[in-house]
Amino acid sequence: MSRVWNFSAGPAALPLEVLQQAQADLLDWNGSGASVMELSHRGKPFMAMAAQAEADLRELLAIPAHYAVLFLQGGATQHFAQIPMNLAAPGDRADYVLTGHWSEKAVSEAGPYVQTRIVASSKEQGYRCLPLVDTAALDPDAAYLHYVANETIHGIEWRQPPPSGHLPLVADMSSNILSAPVDIERHGIVYAGAQKNIGPSGLVVMIIRRDLLAREGRPMANVLRYREQAAADSMLNTPNTWGWYLAGLTFKWILAQGGLAAIEAGNIRKSGLLYQAIDGSGGFYRNPVDPAARSRMNVPFTLHDPALDALFLEQSAAAGLMALKGHKAVGGMRASIYNAVPLAAVEALVAFMAEFARRYG
Amino acid sequence: MSRVWNFSAGPAALPLEVLQQAQADLLDWNGSGASVMELSHRGKPFMAMAAQAEADLRELLAIPAHYAVLFLQGGATQHFAQIPMNLAAPGDRADYVLTGHWSEKAVSEAGPYVQTRIVASSKEQGYRCLPLVDTAALDPDAAYLHYVANETIHGIEWRQPPPSGHLPLVADMSSNILSAPVDIERHGIVYAGAQKNIGPSGLVVMIIRRDLLAREGRPMANVLRYREQAAADSMLNTPNTWGWYLAGLTFKWILAQGGLAAIEAGNIRKSGLLYQAIDGSGGFYRNPVDPAARSRMNVPFTLHDPALDALFLEQSAAAGLMALKGHKAVGGMRASIYNAVPLAAVEALVAFMAEFARRYG
Repeated sequence: MSRVWNFSAGPAALPLEVLQQAQADLLDWNGSGASVMELSHRGKPFMAMAAQAEADLRELLAIPAHYAVLFLQGGATQHFAQIPMNLAAPGDRADYVLTGHWSEKAVSEAGPYVQTRIVASSKEQGYRCLPLVDTAALDPDAAYLHYVANETIHGIEWRQPPPSGHLPLVADMSSNILSAPVDIERHGIVYAGAQKNIGPSGLVVMIIRRDLLAREGRPMANVLRYREQAAADSMLNTPNTWGWYLAGLTFKWILAQGGLAAIEAGNIRKSGLLYQAIDGSGGFYRNPVDPAARSRMNVPFTLHDPALDALFLEQSAAAGLMALKGHKAVGGMRASIYNAVPLAAVEALVAFMAEFARRYG
Repeated sequence: MSRVWNFSAGPAALPLEVLQQAQADLLDWNGSGASVMELSHRGKPFMAMAAQAEADLRELLAIPAHYAVLFLQGGATQHFAQIPMNLAAPGDRADYVLTGHWSEKAVSEAGPYVQTRIVASSKEQGYRCLPLVDTAALDPDAAYLHYVANETIHGIEWRQPPPSGHLPLVADMSSNILSAPVDIERHGIVYAGAQKNIGPSGLVVMIIRRDLLAREGRPMANVLRYREQAAADSMLNTPNTWGWYLAGLTFKWILAQGGLAAIEAGNIRKSGLLYQAIDGSGGFYRNPVDPAARSRMNVPFTLHDPALDALFLEQSAAAGLMALKGHKAVGGMRASIYNAVPLAAVEALVAFMAEFARRYG
């Protein structure tokens, strides 16, 4: 067994201790004589594990009791559609903030279910900064205001949520949830695909203020209605039990690290090291994002000479640094340094980058 | 590590060899230096594995080229809703066959998207037999005819698909897919939640005739449209990568067993043994289903004296026979004996049942 440093944007690195526990449990979980994947979600052992996972998440994010926590399927993309289905009646409108690829996608997937309007955008700036959100410009009758807390491709992150006036604020936190404390009460919904900071793909964690569950939305199947899933403890249909279990292990791992304050400190240190290496390279490496908006999770960077890209990727892979190729939308490189990517991985990357720049600069 | 005989209805037993492979791969899959859960679904190694899984499934079920194979999320329940969204335009009608709990649920979840009509039902017979489907009674303008190939709770199974005239036949095969050969060309859609005969929960496998992908259905998000998922090789959004990987291992396991003909022979033998034990118990155990309709996957049975139920469950659990409690809708016991439940498990159950009957009969 030989592990690499994994900078994948998602599905992404999981904590080694979580994987080791999952490996040890795989044939016989919790003394059951079966894998957790082989057990009924309605049996006592799984239900107890599931409830503990929720309790641990509530502790980590200080989630108040008037918010429900759901463990769903479909990825954030499906919930781009399901959120307007649930929150907007036919004919309703909703406001959106554009900061990159994922917020654009949120708008397009919502289109069939709500009249969308862009109230703030940094598109004209090439998504290299965060736009100002003017609450006076919000639609007072909008069903909600949606934003993406971290743009995985463009490497932009909101340190604080944008103002939303009296509108329920809906945040896609797929790529930065649990990377730092969050003020849940500023939000109506926080949701996240699991495959960056929570666990494997195929699971969505949603934190939703209970009054929003009372909204009628549009006619739809029960399985798509958040109110029904909340009433059924996310077991209206069979949930992704393996994903839920791994999420629970990850929540415990974060608690063992000291919770979100400690995790945030680690992420500040890791991302600081990497941005410093880029900014201090004399232009060999470049990151175009406004420093105030730079993501601590996804660090895109380009080489001064794109002709070196292939060599950089080849040599970094040979050095055990995996998945550094940037997204085609922005080109160059991208290092995703989620919670589970240790400081040692970033140190190895930074050392490689310095040596590469020395050799080819 | 101590494994039990697992009769869970789903999530259910997985092949031991599949679990052992997954355990061996957990920290370092395919020489990648990472878990399969930690890799991009768009990377070459995962895409190659995913394509091989599809090829193996095509071989197992002899799926013709004019059918697409999709690996989706949401469980069969979500597709109860998504199928009419995709196949029926607003105002369209669809015909349904009722054979138990799951076909009732398919009807109710479809309700918001299509005008449903029951064309055949065994509800008045307590779902103890299969109804006759009269093609003359089908709505010639229906968008499709839907049936559930195996009713997990009632223990009823279609050996051959019902006639559907010229209507596309849509089959929920969640609980009997890959238990025997199937005539795919009799169907427009075959779909199945993975958590019985394919892998862990959180994955749906769908086999869909390509001409049906051209139907416009109703306005909906791209992520919910089968045509878009087919065009994107089921990667319009991040799929359940762990589920897909385990499905691939399970397909290989079935091929190694000799394919579906061999699997079917094993299932005939296992279910035959158990029904024989029930029918030959002199009334101590009873199964009420018409023998021609008895499921080879889920065998519900009652004890002649329900006062013995608790004792039966306690003693069977102590004997290493897990999850025999029946569904509350029908009471008594249920032994789910999917592909991954070995003959030895059924032999152990039958021996236990005989001994229990001897002691308390």
